Amino acid sequence: MLNIAIIGYGNIGKAALDAVLSAPDMQLAGIVRRNAVNIPAELAAYKVVDNIDKLSHVDVALLCTPTREVPRYAAEMLSKGISTVDSFDIHTQIADLRSTLMPLARQHNAVSIISAGWDPGSDSVVRCLLEAIAPKGITYTNFGPGRSMGHSVAVRAIDGVEDALSVTIPLGTGIHRRMVYVQAKQGYDHALIEKTILEDDYFRHDETHVQFVDNVDALNDTGHGVNLVRKGVSGKTHNQHFEFNMSINNPALTGQVMVACARAAKSLQPGAYTMIEIPPIALLPGSAEDNIRKLV
Amino acid sequence: MLNIAIIGYGNIGKAALDAVLSAPDMQLAGIVRRNAVNIPAELAAYKVVDNIDKLSHVDVALLCTPTREVPRYAAEMLSKGISTVDSFDIHTQIADLRSTLMPLARQHNAVSIISAGWDPGSDSVVRCLLEAIAPKGITYTNFGPGRSMGHSVAVRAIDGVEDALSVTIPLGTGIHRRMVYVQAKQGYDHALIEKTILEDDYFRHDETHVQFVDNVDALNDTGHGVNLVRKGVSGKTHNQHFEFNMSINNPALTGQVMVACARAAKSLQPGAYTMIEIPPIALLPGSAEDNIRKLV
Repeated sequence: MLNIAIIGYGNIGKAALDAVLSAPDMQLAGIVRRNAVNIPAELAAYKVVDNIDKLSHVDVALLCTPTREVPRYAAEMLSKGISTVDSFDIHTQIADLRSTLMPLARQHNAVSIISAGWDPGSDSVVRCLLEAIAPKGITYTNFGPGRSMGHSVAVRAIDGVEDALSVTIPLGTGIHRRMVYVQAKQGYDHALIEKTILEDDYFRHDETHVQFVDNVDALNDTGHGVNLVRKGVSGKTHNQHFEFNMSINNPALTGQVMVACARAAKSLQPGAYTMIEIPPIALLPGSAEDNIRKLV
Repeated sequence: MLNIAIIGYGNIGKAALDAVLSAPDMQLAGIVRRNAVNIPAELAAYKVVDNIDKLSHVDVALLCTPTREVPRYAAEMLSKGISTVDSFDIHTQIADLRSTLMPLARQHNAVSIISAGWDPGSDSVVRCLLEAIAPKGITYTNFGPGRSMGHSVAVRAIDGVEDALSVTIPLGTGIHRRMVYVQAKQGYDHALIEKTILEDDYFRHDETHVQFVDNVDALNDTGHGVNLVRKGVSGKTHNQHFEFNMSINNPALTGQVMVACARAAKSLQPGAYTMIEIPPIALLPGSAEDNIRKLV
């Protein structure tokens, strides 16, 4: 049995817990969160601590913290010889994070699997596979419909905004519409808030629609989706069509991908990896022989 | 540059040649075929021989022979220390072929990648990934529309059949219709041919329609497709939907997948592998760093 610690207990941490408890080959070493005193009722049966050192025999730590805190936590865990899995999602910084964690993981004989969610993550595996089997062509990743955390947070930071939700709508060929739902504070000018949103760097390149609503929370739904399309050339043969679609609960899928990667961590040489560097079979429980008979 | 030999020059061999010539990191060592005397005009620029020993410095041999001859050719090449890639497609015998070739590959310090086509092959990678990210649920692989070689050959073997084509039509949930087009020899009873087809083991479990036509060759089209669907559970969250679709030229995709796997062969430890055992990034040319920045 693989001993798993969950670091952080937000949406992703909760989903990761479900996935660990459902895995036939894992057990929960414990949950690490800042507040280890006021423990939610559903965690009564588990060890909840405020420091990983209070847990024993942790094989893999799932970093379910805000994405910007991942590099710090990963370095801390790896230094203790604990392997890590995160769902770091800032695409432009992934290669650098891998380079930073690589020597640390090797030095401490541990494995760090980074950006293990659905995008980056399982979508990256599909993009990589399609690039290999149709080397010339264009891949479009169309997201949604679903909530964009980054865009929602950007709107919430605007003066006069009580709460906000930005929903990403896929228009095809990688073009997205932003549907922004704003709950304004009393006495603030809606027109000014709307103007500020439309001029924000997060929104000014996309078709954006702002709507004012009474209660943003009533609109929240963790469903998300992707439509990943590639048309390309295999050998010298053009017009090869490929498409990958998902309609999923976002945190549930992220948590499950992280747990599958925790399993893979035990079969890899020390180092830092993205998901496209992992043999897919390493994500599964059971023997290689059985999985090959079942899936190939 | 990786030196590639192509063994067999049928539909797949031709497509593999296109893919080798299009690869930035490969060169053709030569083509091995029984008839090395009457060489097709398009091969004039290449070395065509009747025995692999007549080629020098072969890194990987692509086995583009009929599927039943793959085990014999793979064993022969591996014994010479030449790595192999094949598209062996008898699903029930893949795990056994891997077990047979494994010690041979290791003994001769070579790599054998088996069943490297689209199904088995790239579809297997998608099935494996979906099983990992939604561990409970059902995957349906729906093939077509496209020609089934196995079914077409079975009909051609029936007395009175001049030529035949069996097209697989996907009806969803892994159920398929067989559209069988038959060019009968003169003087044979159409009703008897139809009855023989419908009672054949290849057809009697599926909805099958037989039509007699004047010219089967006029119907031939190497296009094929797949609609691979999984609905399942991530963690404890049900109703996660996934779908992978392709509409492709069949030999072109098979040849391209084999060539991508030839590239992977150079980065793997000696042994026999199916595609789900290979890190997807190993299928691509270029540096890991660049591919991670581009695809993850």
